Amino acid sequence: MPDLTPWETLKRTLLLDRSPWMRIFEDDVRLPDGRVIEGYLRLETSGYVMIVPVRPDAHIGLVRSYKRGVDGVDIQPPAGILEQGEDPLEAAKRELKEELGCVATTWYELGEVVLSGNYFAGYAHFFLATGCREIAEPDSGDLEEQEVVWLPLEEARRSWSEGGFRQVGAVAALGLAFQKIDKVGLE
Amino acid sequence: MPDLTPWETLKRTLLLDRSPWMRIFEDDVRLPDGRVIEGYLRLETSGYVMIVPVRPDAHIGLVRSYKRGVDGVDIQPPAGILEQGEDPLEAAKRELKEELGCVATTWYELGEVVLSGNYFAGYAHFFLATGCREIAEPDSGDLEEQEVVWLPLEEARRSWSEGGFRQVGAVAALGLAFQKIDKVGLE
Repeated sequence: MPDLTPWETLKRTLLLDRSPWMRIFEDDVRLPDGRVIEGYLRLETSGYVMIVPVRPDAHIGLVRSYKRGVDGVDIQPPAGILEQGEDPLEAAKRELKEELGCVATTWYELGEVVLSGNYFAGYAHFFLATGCREIAEPDSGDLEEQEVVWLPLEEARRSWSEGGFRQVGAVAALGLAFQKIDKVGLE
Repeated sequence: MPDLTPWETLKRTLLLDRSPWMRIFEDDVRLPDGRVIEGYLRLETSGYVMIVPVRPDAHIGLVRSYKRGVDGVDIQPPAGILEQGEDPLEAAKRELKEELGCVATTWYELGEVVLSGNYFAGYAHFFLATGCREIAEPDSGDLEEQEVVWLPLEEARRSWSEGGFRQVGAVAALGLAFQKIDKVGLE
């Protein structure tokens, strides 16, 4: 049987502090077999929330914007950095309001994942929001200018399955949301 | 209409070189509206491949191991760092052989995504491998000891939908793979 004992942290050193965006550490760790690895990286961010919003007429709300990490314009569900100490569901409601000008009837938690299995990099919290309706003009306040797009559910699903979304978080959130919509419906 | 013009990179500075694992840069950038942002972070890694392997008897191959980023034992599809200049499909075949001792009949590319929409962080390349059969003992060569688990397809899908996978890449790859299996079958 393999030994799945957690690695032991011998020392943690802060290499770069770019709070509130990111802190980068290096750890010296001892593996279960006794080997010591020096300088194993650890990234800490405050993480983000991502919301898949659906209207009763089976349209999904997305935003198009220039994304630095994609090196181009990309389309994705609304998302935002989690502020210090903020509850993820409250942050999700805030982002939906800011980015799409929407409120939702029902919120489903789709899960919480780490952004790197090796380096941590913070958590992403995924939500499905059904019964969405637009009550205000979007005003994201982000560095990126963005355009709101409401896509028919089946068109969004086809695009998802064909590589139309280029960020790992968007692909993960949409997959979970489509599965959840199949189960709970649109209301 | 929002202005989705790409940001202009004015200067890029290497902050931390941990090749071949990671290089961290900061960029000074100019936004479409003329504002200049200094020190926008950029992470570069060589990325990884992740494979969802399925046997003809409708079992999915997964590995359990201690994952530093999860801070505990996690289960995920087999995956591995892409080596310098390596073709992603070749890397995927190598990882499937190393981690599960398997070869597959048919390979499907499920897509390629960036690991951070803001900071890049490298690409993940996802594959579905059907018709898998075990031809050797696994020998991953990774720092983490690991245990191979073959889960019934429907059990893996239920676990995926209930938050049983804790890394964003695993959730993304499995969602795409389940959808693809529904379409192409198991052979």
